[in-house]
Amino acid sequence: MNYHVMTLFPEMIEHAMNISITGRALKNGILALDVVNIRDYSKDKHNRVDDYPYGGGAGMVMQAQPVYDCHQDLVKKIMDRTKEKGRLPRTIYLTPQGHTFHQKMAEELAKEEDLIFLCGHYEGIDERVLQKIVTDQVSIGDYVLTGGELPAMVMMDTISRLIPGVLHNEDSAEAESFSNDLLEYPQYTRPPEFMGEKVPDILLTGNHAKIEAWRLEQAMERTKKARPELYEAYMLKNPPKLQKRRKKK
Amino acid sequence: MNYHVMTLFPEMIEHAMNISITGRALKNGILALDVVNIRDYSKDKHNRVDDYPYGGGAGMVMQAQPVYDCHQDLVKKIMDRTKEKGRLPRTIYLTPQGHTFHQKMAEELAKEEDLIFLCGHYEGIDERVLQKIVTDQVSIGDYVLTGGELPAMVMMDTISRLIPGVLHNEDSAEAESFSNDLLEYPQYTRPPEFMGEKVPDILLTGNHAKIEAWRLEQAMERTKKARPELYEAYMLKNPPKLQKRRKKK
Repeated sequence: MNYHVMTLFPEMIEHAMNISITGRALKNGILALDVVNIRDYSKDKHNRVDDYPYGGGAGMVMQAQPVYDCHQDLVKKIMDRTKEKGRLPRTIYLTPQGHTFHQKMAEELAKEEDLIFLCGHYEGIDERVLQKIVTDQVSIGDYVLTGGELPAMVMMDTISRLIPGVLHNEDSAEAESFSNDLLEYPQYTRPPEFMGEKVPDILLTGNHAKIEAWRLEQAMERTKKARPELYEAYMLKNPPKLQKRRKKK
Repeated sequence: MNYHVMTLFPEMIEHAMNISITGRALKNGILALDVVNIRDYSKDKHNRVDDYPYGGGAGMVMQAQPVYDCHQDLVKKIMDRTKEKGRLPRTIYLTPQGHTFHQKMAEELAKEEDLIFLCGHYEGIDERVLQKIVTDQVSIGDYVLTGGELPAMVMMDTISRLIPGVLHNEDSAEAESFSNDLLEYPQYTRPPEFMGEKVPDILLTGNHAKIEAWRLEQAMERTKKARPELYEAYMLKNPPKLQKRRKKK
């Protein structure tokens, strides 16, 4: 997977992506990261990339030209490598106006070979260049951020975990939240007693079938409490008869 | 606003928060950021903070003791400053098991004087310490990340923008998405023509009432297309009669 990020704050992306699991995958060559500064494509003598919005209103808007030229350069680089003329790489614009990101979208994007992330700042980017280059408008949630950098990193982190070889056994995604439509069960580790609180007895029995059943119950209870809409969807997909069979195995 | 972050990757938080709008607010003293390394509270001779999960399963779980001791230290520091004995500061655990973060939650949290963010890693944190110290479990969306660091930064960025003095006029939040239950209208800036595409005429008329009406229409159209559920909620709150009146003013 080759990530390409268009941003005004390249060092923020580079620094954070070089840490922890994505950092290891970058070192191992499973992932590649190419961060480009949109400002390098400014034709203004002061290197400006923004201007006042037409029609008035607060804030500044990023101009079409530097964004377009930066994107053209990236596309050329990718096409030269892949020789796959004709098919444009997916270009994701991070914006509260987009479709909401979720685990299934990450699974789909993880199949791509190249992904371009376009990070806006200020009040957004001139609509005309978005219409020309963007294939996917994505929002990470219903809240407003300063720029697209954090959302791009959130997406890259989520997607990276789904690429074979990125996760090792010790950080496996097997029983993770949303992978079976339920939130994850509670976790406990040593010592067996902490400030008077003991680990639930069942986890010390070594009876795997019973442990699985207990964990499923806990996951269902938690989901019902914190996210009733997820719980409902789960119950529709897994009517009680099916659940019993699952517990038994 | 004083942010306190408990993490295994302090430099990731410090680096990213010192950039752009939050960076400026930190320099101006409108925000304060205190990042503590949970590993400094390990009592293990190898500085370990994680161990295998009871009951089996992939991944490692963060142990209760270092997290608890780290939190106690932070709470003491905050209490010494505020002298507000008795009232515990809000402690937010970033987890896919939490309630989903949204703009209204950010508005509520922006009123606090201190916020503690607890960032987990690996398969999560021992449930017993979470029960003792956490006041809010929050998820930034339905996807799985490597740790709580990116979500904590997402929350701090969103919350910071709502604190008086953090945003200047040029990055004002006035017309932003979700502030009126609609996505934002498209933005345009100089030049008036880009690759044959012109700015919509109406934006050049200087007729503010007409511009406002056009922008509202665009915002409604966009919301209807990308987020039908938000559009429906908006229509219920703003029946057509009310909308007409708004367009006129």
